[in-house]
Amino acid sequence: MSTQNQSVLQQFHNITGKLKSYEEAIGLMQWDLRTGAPRKGAEQRAQTIGVLSGDMFKLSVSNEMGSCLDALEQPEQFEALSAADRKMVTDARKEFNRSRLIPPELYQEHVVLTSHAETVWEEAKEKADFEMFKPYLRDIVAKTQQFIDYWGVKDTRYDTLLDMYEPGMTVAKLDETFGQLRDSLVPLVQSVQASSQPEFEFLYRECPIEGQKVISLQLLKEMGYDFDAGRLDESVHPFMIGLNPGDARITTNYKTDDVASAIFSSLHEGGHALYEQNISKEFAGTPLSSGTSMGIHESQSRFWENVVGRSRPFWQHYYGSLQKLFPTQLQNVTGDMFYRAINRVEPSLIRIEADEVTYNLHIIIRYEIEKMLFNDELSVDDLPRVWQEKYESYLGVSPQNAGEGVLQDVHWAGGGFGYFPSYSLGNMYAAQIMNTMRKAMPSFDDTIAQGQLLPIKEWLSEQIYQYGKLLTPSEIIMKVTGEALNPQYLVDYLTEKTKDVYGI
Amino acid sequence: MSTQNQSVLQQFHNITGKLKSYEEAIGLMQWDLRTGAPRKGAEQRAQTIGVLSGDMFKLSVSNEMGSCLDALEQPEQFEALSAADRKMVTDARKEFNRSRLIPPELYQEHVVLTSHAETVWEEAKEKADFEMFKPYLRDIVAKTQQFIDYWGVKDTRYDTLLDMYEPGMTVAKLDETFGQLRDSLVPLVQSVQASSQPEFEFLYRECPIEGQKVISLQLLKEMGYDFDAGRLDESVHPFMIGLNPGDARITTNYKTDDVASAIFSSLHEGGHALYEQNISKEFAGTPLSSGTSMGIHESQSRFWENVVGRSRPFWQHYYGSLQKLFPTQLQNVTGDMFYRAINRVEPSLIRIEADEVTYNLHIIIRYEIEKMLFNDELSVDDLPRVWQEKYESYLGVSPQNAGEGVLQDVHWAGGGFGYFPSYSLGNMYAAQIMNTMRKAMPSFDDTIAQGQLLPIKEWLSEQIYQYGKLLTPSEIIMKVTGEALNPQYLVDYLTEKTKDVYGI
Repeated sequence: MSTQNQSVLQQFHNITGKLKSYEEAIGLMQWDLRTGAPRKGAEQRAQTIGVLSGDMFKLSVSNEMGSCLDALEQPEQFEALSAADRKMVTDARKEFNRSRLIPPELYQEHVVLTSHAETVWEEAKEKADFEMFKPYLRDIVAKTQQFIDYWGVKDTRYDTLLDMYEPGMTVAKLDETFGQLRDSLVPLVQSVQASSQPEFEFLYRECPIEGQKVISLQLLKEMGYDFDAGRLDESVHPFMIGLNPGDARITTNYKTDDVASAIFSSLHEGGHALYEQNISKEFAGTPLSSGTSMGIHESQSRFWENVVGRSRPFWQHYYGSLQKLFPTQLQNVTGDMFYRAINRVEPSLIRIEADEVTYNLHIIIRYEIEKMLFNDELSVDDLPRVWQEKYESYLGVSPQNAGEGVLQDVHWAGGGFGYFPSYSLGNMYAAQIMNTMRKAMPSFDDTIAQGQLLPIKEWLSEQIYQYGKLLTPSEIIMKVTGEALNPQYLVDYLTEKTKDVYGI
Repeated sequence: MSTQNQSVLQQFHNITGKLKSYEEAIGLMQWDLRTGAPRKGAEQRAQTIGVLSGDMFKLSVSNEMGSCLDALEQPEQFEALSAADRKMVTDARKEFNRSRLIPPELYQEHVVLTSHAETVWEEAKEKADFEMFKPYLRDIVAKTQQFIDYWGVKDTRYDTLLDMYEPGMTVAKLDETFGQLRDSLVPLVQSVQASSQPEFEFLYRECPIEGQKVISLQLLKEMGYDFDAGRLDESVHPFMIGLNPGDARITTNYKTDDVASAIFSSLHEGGHALYEQNISKEFAGTPLSSGTSMGIHESQSRFWENVVGRSRPFWQHYYGSLQKLFPTQLQNVTGDMFYRAINRVEPSLIRIEADEVTYNLHIIIRYEIEKMLFNDELSVDDLPRVWQEKYESYLGVSPQNAGEGVLQDVHWAGGGFGYFPSYSLGNMYAAQIMNTMRKAMPSFDDTIAQGQLLPIKEWLSEQIYQYGKLLTPSEIIMKVTGEALNPQYLVDYLTEKTKDVYGI
């Protein structure tokens, strides 16, 4: 590479490094606001976050960035770049175009609109009043349509949105995979409903937080969460934030009347954090030092929460510890009863309370609706009706009002169309990865049953975590499992598990 | 003001607002590093702080800032500005010139030099080896001399340094005030040494941290520290950091073998925090939203720690609570004995362990040496000898090695010449302010003896805190007390208290 191009590359690294620094500073301020920042400082803090975000945005779409990209994208230059630099240039260009193609005043309108809409949504949800939220939703959809037109329509308009959260994902692929998933899960759920439900009330007895902390910490340590490269705090909604590879923080929420929820949220956020903590240190300070997509990230949180954490071998090992911590609450509850309780399948109206099986149907409903909104001109007026029909058809339940129906999630108020599929993509990736891991590690179940979680972390680090954003989601899945996304693994995993739990 | 000038003013506000935002982000990252950030993230965090500090520096010396200042300093424009804007312009110009007058490569050399010097100092102090540190100290003094020449010599070279930390402070004023202080305190210390020391071993008995937390929290609440606008954490060295008026955080350090130290550090940092929390909200997000100088800030921490917290009426009220928390440790210890123990005067070698009286002599020694270094060409070679002579002459003690002598403080390794006087300025300001407060609030002692600390906070807020950086240190002192800095108040206060404690 010529000296001149080396200096362009250096300049590009300076810009991306700076963007990463701003992201880290903003991330810490957000973590702080959500964990323990004093109430009265929040308003000024929001302004500070606004200033830094603004500077970050300006830099990411600056002419300086544009010139670097133009130069580095020249074919002979691009070929001479390392794989890491090529990926960074590609990602930066995508981001640059995404931002530059939208007229600033339109972007500003969108910021104001979604900011208002989130406030209105909150009240509308509380009052279960869809009419109140409807004009905002209509405007957000319209504005998003405009954005798509500026960005350029991929195969369909909704494809353009999908690609933002899961690069390379398309309607064609999702129609196929989600279709297959839906067609298998709907009858599975129906077969469960013909069976008798396991007992589960013992999960919701009064149980002191201290014991929940003990087991959460134990599990995090044993799965390999590095407390020298992170910390555990409490917040209303559990989350993980990766500030840098040496600082991936998680939070949990202890409920005094739920013995298991903090455990599963710790495993879930711990899974996200293992990903961030084990990205190769050579990417530190670059945009590659981050999980590659929402879907792959979610596959890791769900792998640890569900595939590992709700498995029979896992509780063969850990149930004794849990029972010791809560001897009265879990008196006369066997490990088998506990395992069945935490895996019971029950159609419900609320996504975030759904079990491992029905959860995917909640997502598929949202996917199908979003796709119709953007591709088939489903009108916002018809949303509640379509919502109701799909819930009845797939889950056999029917919301009594918009609060427990179409208004339940904040995503649309913020304009986050295309995000929902990530959750079920995560489930599908996780099952597919498990299938490969079982072949590579035939003692998978025994290992877990002995409480040996570290080999699992090592394998995932080696196969997935270390790469950060270097590989795309589809490259990761192909490299790890030798085939493209295949929903059959999730169908098989859920079917087998459900049969085990229900003895059917 | 013309439209054009309004837009210049707007631009100036944008720049200063942005600088304040960066300061807040950097402040939070520093707080985090010192309270609970994971060890492995520290290196990357330091880089992030470096990036933001660099951007902040560049903006503060940008041509954009220069043009704003040039425009706003035009006499007819300047006169039309509000008092707040005038002060902001004046301060920004001072900072701008300070930074722009130094050639960047010289500044860079200084950063590298002091960074190395701090590492070497740490080892040299441990080994008590002055020779090891000497070449670095010589270079730092030489480089600082160069800086002074670029900045411009005020009355003397050392005046230029003093003004950085305490705007308006001069060698002429300090020679007079410190001289008067020294000539009064040296004989006072000698008279104490002729008296018998009070008992004090009971202060250093094993005492659980829990009880220390209870009383520290109680005191902070009762002095008016707003926990909705701050938080209390633990760190190795206690500190206060004011992120914004709604977020002034403090830390303390609990020692298991010291019943009083956490109490006094809480009062000290709490005093700093009261200042920051009570700055007028109209200055939020501007450079005026901060204490006006190191000296005035230190006057407030010391007012709460010493003037209030080591007073007889204070312990008349609080000793009962303390004794209840530590009944075995303080068995047979009366409130009077406790009061005398926490106020005993004893010449020692180490500044940070010194009592309220001798502390000032430690500072005066450093002041006299710094002044000689910069104004009278005292050579660094002669430092240990001069140090020894002054300690013998003022305090009657003599360091056995450089570790407990000239190497004890980190300040010089970081190039912080001119900073030390702030500590004793704080003591002098505090005593002078107390004198005025006693006149305005004749029930001062009774109020404290009733545990009514809020009226004191209110008075200080009204008189001092609300102004932030709007007024200079000398304006504040003149406005509050009706006269310029007068060391006699500190002399009288310390003399009276010492006589009370020693019954002399």
